[in-house]
Amino acid sequence: MTEKKTSGDDNTVFVGRKDLMSYVLAVVTQFNEGGVDEVVIKARGRAISRAVDAAEISRQRFLPDVSVKDVQLGTEQIEGEKGPVRVSSMEITLGR
Amino acid sequence: MTEKKTSGDDNTVFVGRKDLMSYVLAVVTQFNEGGVDEVVIKARGRAISRAVDAAEISRQRFLPDVSVKDVQLGTEQIEGEKGPVRVSSMEITLGR
Repeated sequence: MTEKKTSGDDNTVFVGRKDLMSYVLAVVTQFNEGGVDEVVIKARGRAISRAVDAAEISRQRFLPDVSVKDVQLGTEQIEGEKGPVRVSSMEITLGR
Repeated sequence: MTEKKTSGDDNTVFVGRKDLMSYVLAVVTQFNEGGVDEVVIKARGRAISRAVDAAEISRQRFLPDVSVKDVQLGTEQIEGEKGPVRVSSMEITLGR
Protein backbone atom coordinates (compact mmCIF):
# COMPACT_ATOMS: atom_id res chain seq x y z
CA MET A 1 0.00 0.00 0.00
CA THR A 2 2.11 2.85 -1.24
CA GLU A 3 -0.79 4.45 -3.04
CA LYS A 4 -2.19 7.59 -1.44
CA LYS A 5 -5.94 7.86 -0.91
CA THR A 6 -7.72 11.15 -0.47
CA SER A 7 -10.20 9.42 1.83
CA GLY A 8 -10.72 6.31 3.86
CA ASP A 9 -13.75 5.49 1.73
CA ASP A 10 -12.64 3.52 -1.28
CA ASN A 11 -15.78 4.23 -3.24
CA THR A 12 -15.74 8.02 -2.82
CA VAL A 13 -14.39 10.48 -5.38
CA PHE A 14 -13.73 14.02 -4.18
CA VAL A 15 -14.00 16.54 -6.99
CA GLY A 16 -11.72 19.56 -6.72
CA ARG A 17 -9.72 21.67 -9.14
CA LYS A 18 -8.17 18.99 -11.28
CA ASP A 19 -9.09 18.30 -14.88
CA LEU A 20 -12.64 17.00 -15.34
CA MET A 21 -11.54 13.80 -17.06
CA SER A 22 -9.35 12.76 -14.12
CA TYR A 23 -12.52 12.51 -12.01
CA VAL A 24 -14.36 10.66 -14.75
CA LEU A 25 -11.46 8.20 -14.85
CA ALA A 26 -11.59 7.81 -11.06
CA VAL A 27 -15.33 7.04 -11.13
CA VAL A 28 -15.08 4.61 -14.04
CA THR A 29 -12.09 2.83 -12.46
CA GLN A 30 -13.97 2.39 -9.18
CA PHE A 31 -16.85 0.72 -10.96
CA ASN A 32 -14.77 -1.40 -13.32
CA GLU A 33 -11.88 -2.42 -11.07
CA GLY A 34 -12.84 -1.49 -7.53
CA GLY A 35 -15.47 -4.19 -7.18
CA VAL A 36 -18.12 -1.73 -6.02
CA ASP A 37 -21.73 -1.24 -7.06
CA GLU A 38 -21.90 2.32 -5.80
CA VAL A 39 -19.64 5.35 -6.07
CA VAL A 40 -20.21 8.61 -4.20
CA ILE A 41 -18.99 11.81 -5.87
CA LYS A 42 -18.48 14.67 -3.40
CA ALA A 43 -17.79 18.34 -4.06
CA ARG A 44 -18.01 21.73 -2.43
CA GLY A 45 -18.46 25.27 -3.71
CA ARG A 46 -17.63 25.91 -7.34
CA ALA A 47 -16.46 22.32 -7.85
CA ILE A 48 -20.12 21.25 -7.65
CA SER A 49 -20.67 21.99 -11.36
CA ARG A 50 -17.66 19.84 -12.21
CA ALA A 51 -18.99 17.01 -10.03
CA VAL A 52 -22.22 17.01 -12.05
CA ASP A 53 -20.20 16.99 -15.28
CA ALA A 54 -18.12 14.06 -13.99
CA ALA A 55 -21.24 12.11 -13.02
CA GLU A 56 -22.98 12.77 -16.34
CA ILE A 57 -19.98 11.95 -18.54
CA SER A 58 -19.10 8.81 -16.55
CA ARG A 59 -22.63 7.54 -16.79
CA GLN A 60 -23.44 8.42 -20.39
CA ARG A 61 -20.15 7.71 -22.07
CA PHE A 62 -18.62 4.88 -20.05
CA LEU A 63 -21.11 3.24 -17.68
CA PRO A 64 -24.43 2.59 -19.43
CA ASP A 65 -25.68 0.34 -16.60
CA VAL A 66 -25.10 2.99 -13.94
CA SER A 67 -27.64 5.62 -12.87
CA VAL A 68 -27.97 8.44 -10.34
CA LYS A 69 -29.35 6.86 -7.17
CA ASP A 70 -29.35 9.88 -4.90
CA VAL A 71 -28.27 13.52 -4.73
CA GLN A 72 -27.83 15.23 -1.37
CA LEU A 73 -27.25 18.95 -0.92
CA GLY A 74 -25.78 20.51 2.19
CA THR A 75 -23.81 23.34 3.70
CA GLU A 76 -20.43 22.92 5.35
CA GLN A 77 -18.38 25.31 7.42
CA ILE A 78 -14.74 25.51 6.37
CA GLU A 79 -11.83 27.63 7.59
CA GLY A 80 -11.25 30.54 5.23
CA GLU A 81 -8.49 33.13 5.35
CA LYS A 82 -10.74 35.48 7.29
CA GLY A 83 -12.36 32.93 9.59
CA PRO A 84 -15.06 30.32 9.07
CA VAL A 85 -16.92 30.37 5.75
CA ARG A 86 -20.07 28.45 4.78
CA VAL A 87 -19.98 26.64 1.46
CA SER A 88 -22.54 24.50 -0.31
CA SER A 89 -21.75 20.82 -0.69
CA MET A 90 -23.12 18.01 -2.80
CA GLU A 91 -22.99 14.23 -2.81
CA ILE A 92 -24.01 12.31 -5.90
CA THR A 93 -24.49 8.56 -5.46
CA LEU A 94 -24.08 6.59 -8.66
CA GLY A 95 -25.08 2.94 -8.62
CA ARG A 96 -25.64 -0.14 -10.77
CA MET B 1 -49.92 41.42 -16.92
CA THR B 2 -47.08 43.66 -18.01
CA GLU B 3 -44.50 41.68 -16.06
CA LYS B 4 -42.12 39.56 -18.10
CA LYS B 5 -41.58 35.95 -17.11
CA THR B 6 -38.55 33.92 -18.07
CA SER B 7 -40.77 30.86 -18.29
CA GLY B 8 -44.34 29.77 -18.47
CA ASP B 9 -43.92 28.00 -15.16
CA ASP B 10 -44.61 30.42 -12.39
CA ASN B 11 -42.85 28.35 -9.79
CA THR B 12 -39.57 27.91 -11.67
CA VAL B 13 -36.43 29.96 -11.05
CA PHE B 14 -33.72 29.80 -13.71
CA VAL B 15 -30.27 30.46 -12.27
CA GLY B 16 -27.83 32.20 -14.58
CA ARG B 17 -25.13 34.81 -14.21
CA LYS B 18 -26.88 37.31 -11.98
CA ASP B 19 -25.99 37.94 -8.37
CA LEU B 20 -26.68 34.98 -6.09
CA MET B 21 -29.02 36.93 -3.83
CA SER B 22 -31.33 37.85 -6.70
CA TYR B 23 -32.11 34.15 -7.11
CA VAL B 24 -32.55 33.69 -3.38
CA LEU B 25 -35.02 36.58 -3.45
CA ALA B 26 -36.87 35.01 -6.39
CA VAL B 27 -37.22 31.68 -4.55
CA VAL B 28 -38.30 33.25 -1.27
CA THR B 29 -40.81 35.50 -3.04
CA GLN B 30 -42.35 32.51 -4.86
CA PHE B 31 -42.92 30.72 -1.57
CA ASN B 32 -44.12 33.73 0.39
CA GLU B 33 -46.19 35.56 -2.19
CA GLY B 34 -46.67 33.23 -5.12
CA GLY B 35 -49.02 30.90 -3.28
CA VAL B 36 -46.99 27.81 -4.19
CA ASP B 37 -45.81 24.88 -2.10
CA GLU B 38 -43.04 23.91 -4.49
CA VAL B 39 -40.37 25.85 -6.37
CA VAL B 40 -38.07 24.32 -8.98
CA ILE B 41 -34.60 25.84 -9.36
CA LYS B 42 -33.01 25.10 -12.74
CA ALA B 43 -29.45 25.68 -13.91
CA ARG B 44 -26.96 24.57 -16.54
CA GLY B 45 -23.18 24.38 -16.70
CA ARG B 46 -21.25 26.53 -14.29
CA ALA B 47 -24.42 28.08 -12.89
CA ILE B 48 -25.17 24.75 -11.19
CA SER B 49 -22.98 25.67 -8.20
CA ARG B 50 -24.88 28.93 -7.83
CA ALA B 51 -28.20 27.09 -7.98
CA VAL B 52 -27.12 24.92 -5.04
CA ASP B 53 -26.03 28.05 -3.14
CA ALA B 54 -29.40 29.68 -3.87
CA ALA B 55 -31.30 26.60 -2.66
CA GLU B 56 -29.23 26.26 0.50
CA ILE B 57 -29.38 29.95 1.47
CA SER B 58 -33.12 30.22 0.73
CA ARG B 59 -33.85 27.20 2.83
CA GLN B 60 -31.57 27.81 5.77
CA ARG B 61 -31.85 31.54 6.14
CA PHE B 62 -35.38 32.38 4.99
CA LEU B 63 -37.59 29.28 4.67
CA PRO B 64 -37.18 27.00 7.69
CA ASP B 65 -40.23 24.91 6.73
CA VAL B 66 -38.92 24.18 3.23
CA SER B 67 -36.72 21.23 2.31
CA VAL B 68 -35.10 19.69 -0.76
CA LYS B 69 -37.67 17.29 -2.22
CA ASP B 70 -35.81 16.15 -5.30
CA VAL B 71 -32.65 16.76 -7.31
CA GLN B 72 -32.46 15.69 -10.95
CA LEU B 73 -29.27 15.73 -13.02
CA GLY B 74 -29.22 15.73 -16.79
CA THR B 75 -27.41 16.70 -19.96
CA GLU B 76 -28.75 19.18 -22.50
CA GLN B 77 -27.56 20.04 -25.96
CA ILE B 78 -27.28 23.76 -26.62
CA GLU B 79 -26.09 25.75 -29.61
CA GLY B 80 -22.54 26.99 -29.05
CA GLU B 81 -20.47 29.25 -31.27
CA LYS B 82 -18.88 26.22 -32.92
CA GLY B 83 -21.99 24.04 -33.16
CA PRO B 84 -23.92 22.00 -30.61
CA VAL B 85 -22.41 21.60 -27.15
CA ARG B 86 -23.49 19.27 -24.36
CA VAL B 87 -23.84 20.81 -20.93
CA SER B 88 -24.87 19.36 -17.60
CA SER B 89 -28.15 20.52 -16.13
CA MET B 90 -29.77 20.33 -12.72
CA GLU B 91 -33.25 20.76 -11.28
CA ILE B 92 -33.67 21.22 -7.54
CA THR B 93 -37.24 20.93 -6.23
CA LEU B 94 -37.81 22.74 -2.95
CA GLY B 95 -41.08 22.11 -1.14
CA ARG B 96 -42.98 22.68 2.06
